[in-house]
Amino acid sequence: MDSSLYLAAACAAVAIVFALVKFSAIIKKDAGDSTMQDIARQVQEGAAAFLKTEYKWLAVFVVIVGGLIALSDAENGLGGKTAIAFVAGACASGIAGYFGMHTATRAAVRTTQAARASLTEALGVAFSSGIVMGMSVVGLALMGVVGFTLMYAAPENADGVRFSADSLNHVLGFSFGASSIALFSRVGGGIFTKAADVGADLVGKVEAGIPEDDPRNPGTIADNVGDNVGDVAGMGADLFESYVGSIIATMILGSFAFADKENMSSLVLLPLGVAALGILASIIGTYFVKAKDEAHISSALHFGVTVASIAAIVGSAVLCMVVFTFPEGVEGWRLLVAIASGTIIGILIGKVTEYYTGSDGKPVKNIAAQSETGAATNIIHGLATGMESVAAPVLLIALAIFVSYNVCQIEGVDGSGVYGVAIAAVGMLSTLGITLGVDAYGPVADNAGGLAEMAKLPKEVRERTDALDAVGNTTAAIGKGFAIGSAALTALALFSAYCSRAGKELDLEGSLLLDINNHKVMIGLLLGGILPFLFSALTMRAVGNAASEMVNEIRRQFREIPGIMDGTGKPDAARCIKISTDGSLKQMILPGLIAIIAPIAVGMWSPYALGGMLAGALVCGIMMAIFMANAGGAWDNAKKLIESGAHGGKGSDYHAAAVVGDTVGDPFKDTSGPSLNILIKLMTVVAVVFLPWFV
Amino acid sequence: MDSSLYLAAACAAVAIVFALVKFSAIIKKDAGDSTMQDIARQVQEGAAAFLKTEYKWLAVFVVIVGGLIALSDAENGLGGKTAIAFVAGACASGIAGYFGMHTATRAAVRTTQAARASLTEALGVAFSSGIVMGMSVVGLALMGVVGFTLMYAAPENADGVRFSADSLNHVLGFSFGASSIALFSRVGGGIFTKAADVGADLVGKVEAGIPEDDPRNPGTIADNVGDNVGDVAGMGADLFESYVGSIIATMILGSFAFADKENMSSLVLLPLGVAALGILASIIGTYFVKAKDEAHISSALHFGVTVASIAAIVGSAVLCMVVFTFPEGVEGWRLLVAIASGTIIGILIGKVTEYYTGSDGKPVKNIAAQSETGAATNIIHGLATGMESVAAPVLLIALAIFVSYNVCQIEGVDGSGVYGVAIAAVGMLSTLGITLGVDAYGPVADNAGGLAEMAKLPKEVRERTDALDAVGNTTAAIGKGFAIGSAALTALALFSAYCSRAGKELDLEGSLLLDINNHKVMIGLLLGGILPFLFSALTMRAVGNAASEMVNEIRRQFREIPGIMDGTGKPDAARCIKISTDGSLKQMILPGLIAIIAPIAVGMWSPYALGGMLAGALVCGIMMAIFMANAGGAWDNAKKLIESGAHGGKGSDYHAAAVVGDTVGDPFKDTSGPSLNILIKLMTVVAVVFLPWFV
Repeated sequence: MDSSLYLAAACAAVAIVFALVKFSAIIKKDAGDSTMQDIARQVQEGAAAFLKTEYKWLAVFVVIVGGLIALSDAENGLGGKTAIAFVAGACASGIAGYFGMHTATRAAVRTTQAARASLTEALGVAFSSGIVMGMSVVGLALMGVVGFTLMYAAPENADGVRFSADSLNHVLGFSFGASSIALFSRVGGGIFTKAADVGADLVGKVEAGIPEDDPRNPGTIADNVGDNVGDVAGMGADLFESYVGSIIATMILGSFAFADKENMSSLVLLPLGVAALGILASIIGTYFVKAKDEAHISSALHFGVTVASIAAIVGSAVLCMVVFTFPEGVEGWRLLVAIASGTIIGILIGKVTEYYTGSDGKPVKNIAAQSETGAATNIIHGLATGMESVAAPVLLIALAIFVSYNVCQIEGVDGSGVYGVAIAAVGMLSTLGITLGVDAYGPVADNAGGLAEMAKLPKEVRERTDALDAVGNTTAAIGKGFAIGSAALTALALFSAYCSRAGKELDLEGSLLLDINNHKVMIGLLLGGILPFLFSALTMRAVGNAASEMVNEIRRQFREIPGIMDGTGKPDAARCIKISTDGSLKQMILPGLIAIIAPIAVGMWSPYALGGMLAGALVCGIMMAIFMANAGGAWDNAKKLIESGAHGGKGSDYHAAAVVGDTVGDPFKDTSGPSLNILIKLMTVVAVVFLPWFV
Repeated sequence: MDSSLYLAAACAAVAIVFALVKFSAIIKKDAGDSTMQDIARQVQEGAAAFLKTEYKWLAVFVVIVGGLIALSDAENGLGGKTAIAFVAGACASGIAGYFGMHTATRAAVRTTQAARASLTEALGVAFSSGIVMGMSVVGLALMGVVGFTLMYAAPENADGVRFSADSLNHVLGFSFGASSIALFSRVGGGIFTKAADVGADLVGKVEAGIPEDDPRNPGTIADNVGDNVGDVAGMGADLFESYVGSIIATMILGSFAFADKENMSSLVLLPLGVAALGILASIIGTYFVKAKDEAHISSALHFGVTVASIAAIVGSAVLCMVVFTFPEGVEGWRLLVAIASGTIIGILIGKVTEYYTGSDGKPVKNIAAQSETGAATNIIHGLATGMESVAAPVLLIALAIFVSYNVCQIEGVDGSGVYGVAIAAVGMLSTLGITLGVDAYGPVADNAGGLAEMAKLPKEVRERTDALDAVGNTTAAIGKGFAIGSAALTALALFSAYCSRAGKELDLEGSLLLDINNHKVMIGLLLGGILPFLFSALTMRAVGNAASEMVNEIRRQFREIPGIMDGTGKPDAARCIKISTDGSLKQMILPGLIAIIAPIAVGMWSPYALGGMLAGALVCGIMMAIFMANAGGAWDNAKKLIESGAHGGKGSDYHAAAVVGDTVGDPFKDTSGPSLNILIKLMTVVAVVFLPWFV
């Protein structure tokens, strides 16, 4: 049995080594002329400065919360062991995010330089950078989970049982640590990126009349920094959390459901095995990403993911049918179907997202056409598109639950069905190494384009980076859909873990019974339903507030720095980054506190109300996250469609109407929507970790 | 016992007589000069034409559904008896809506005429018209419920039991009939009113450059018709449904919870008594609505409602403490606290709504200020305000549930707590006679202003009607908040009735156990969560589609009718009304079908999944309804604030930005948001009525 743990650790190590090899290959590439390098250095330093400040704030948070955990009664899964795992989870996610961002900011300038030679060359650099992020995340995440499992759960406990649910509760601290980083990176980073974007545009484009990405604008660098900290590090932390959360939740559920059965440990170790082989599958997939020309970039990326998915399913088949021996009644094919349903539905959710947000789809064309009657109809149809787009992904999630539950439900074994749902989530996330790579490639291509513009490179360079960027926009939208889908299944797995564990702590037969007719559960549902709306309102306002601090700073620099407009005075980009950093982190305190304090406060009143609250937040949160992400993506591409010449083209009244929609969509898709992923997962992790306080 | 039924019928009759007396008093007023009468007649005929067409479509619907009910097995609460109650419910709600609209269209012109003399005079006419709507609704609704209770539930059944839950299930047909009218009136009417509004504005103001309410625009009359069919008849049907639904659900829950107890019937009859005394209280309240001048209109209306609420609570106290004898352990004060908590929280929800949508509040001022940076920031802050505004009303609803459940929960009596929640809903709606009156006064004042404009009356007349209208806007927003709050509690009461009844039909101990951990319940929650988003998307699109048919017709008339622009040719207003009528009814088919078929389809799969679905739709539906109604109300008043001179005033760029927000808010607050009230109630009624099909 332990051999599989060591093999999983080996696969995690392979991922980390693969990331390092890719990184050094990127660094060896030509970084272009001194102008390019100078601009790139500012972005690199800015992004590093943001993350350093973020981590400083985070350190305070980790110390306080870690201290609370350490001082709590260790009998029930809190105490020093959990605190150590918590700190390690925060560090691992932080390192992955920092390294991914570090790579991305270095890869962008090299992508620009490579684009001077050829498109294929440029794609290679940008995609490699994404893969560094993807592999760092899965490598460090799996390494952490395996490490703490070896330390805490593999040794026999007092009753001679290995991998007991109680021991795994300590491992969950690692997941909570990752969640904390996700909160700061995704919410704080999301506010930063849009505050910088909006602030730079408002003063630069509107007041000073200089173009976007103009080096004279002190906010331009901050805007580029935002892409890296929000879309690279933030997205990475979000999915790090999902990856770790789904694996540990599945382990806990396996340990609960099959507690007294022979071969129980194989169900605890299965998610680790699936994740480990998923890493190898992802690496295989990367070798199939090769584009001859512009028309094949998108299909090359999709092909890589498809190969990886097939390889992952084959790997899972070997694990389920050959390697592991499961408890009686649990046939391997059942688990395989659950895993494969997760993997496949993850891809399908991406396809649906592509339909609703892609420039070729009817919805985006419709929004673009509606811009002809003004901003209001553009907005109305964008909102309607976002709301409508909720149906298909949620139906797919429901289908995944239905299939994986029913196929794994075994007569007489309570919790076998929910184990199936949880392992489906692991299946969906198993190829994260490459799917996150495809996603994180987008901002690198975007930054490469900005660099080409700022460094005034020849037109064909910009055209090549634009081709990469256009595909990057779609993969980013798909990545958001995937992130929401996996967050939903992860939260669901953690929710089941909460109910199982609460049932045990409260000495109930089976798991916590959350009857909706129980008024506490109903009140919890309503309270939970409020949270995604409140959280979205707060994060949208936060962008506005942080942006206005940015506006004041840029105005001050234009006023006070002599020669800034004719290029003889150098704008103080670092100060803009600092203002935006402090502003965004300050603005995230209230929503962050709500996400942590709300479940604890309600849990103190009643674990039943808390269960209802988690379910209410989960249901409303998924809907709102999809609504906001897809509305924002659709508005963005509707604007791009008009810019490409449709409905009057750039500069027309129709374009102006579409710009309004895009501006509304910015905080929707890049701040509030993705932040809801964190909300639903973090609340559930908090509920499971602090459960001993509630009983 | 039966005496209380006859007394309730007498109170219902008093309401109907009061409405008729008020109506004849209105009709006796001077209807102004021939120009005014001519314009008013067009609106009257247009509104009548819409309702007639609507009722024709509805008749087909009622015949098909009534036939299905009649042909179903009568043993379990369907069959002929239920079918008759269903048809009667549809007719009663239809008559109330028609009469209210009939009165409103006649009162508007008389309000205008009265405004030539004095403000007090004009307020009297407009408010009387609202009271006709309010009293018709409560009178016909209570009469219907009492009548069918006397026929179906009062006689002893085979076991010698009176007011058995089975017999009351037949009475529920009346509620389902009312729901059907509500679907057509609220959704169809909501689409009509905004399609006409947007269509008339797009061609008239934007293309032809003529002012709003210009008699040359063929869409102007349709716009005024829309106010009457949407805001008067639609709102009336919505609250008719809540009123009837909450009363019957409470009766059923009382019958279930206290099935074998002595004096059970007093708990079945209590909601009828509370409603009956609420009518008398409302009538008393109307005599306290007297405004000396402009500054006192709002306080006069609030004073009337406050007096009525106090009187209703006093009346309930008499019922609970003196008149009724309850089963052992059920002290009267417990029920009184539950009833009063509903009444008080209904008023508080109105206050919260007033804060978020009123021109004096910080949120509206903030949205107006954000218009200075363009339409996008106006939209972002409007959306954020709407999302934020969800918290307080839902917390109040949760508080109402908490108080009424706990105070009424009696050791050993399953379902006594949910009875408390249901009777709180009845308490909230008990003063509907006057609260609906205050609400329905708004569109009359609005129309009166339009008439003054079209008939080119002296400036001071328009000023007086504007003063009435301004208050009407706020009361309309408060009315929407009240409608949502009461819809939520009504749906909750019906939901409990569903669970109680399903438990019985499935031969379970106690009510249906909806454990969120049950994967069917979880899938149901997710499916239910989709519906409010899908429904909102469809209704928003419907407004767009119906509006564009309207646009084509108005363009055609401008092109083809000679002399239309110089006033020598008469626009064909009736044709515009017909186009908008047919368009809006056609557009409501898909959302309407979803609201009815979704619960039946899911119920056929599993009553557990259906229970989850109802809860999911309830939670997401309440949030979305409040979000959309308040965002729309806030945008509207932010625009009005700018028009009153703030931030550049009318015609400035800031005003243009605020107009974009207002246009987005129109379908939000008048179509999609209110339609969600219907969705959550109708789905639950369908679930209870068709339950025998699912088991």
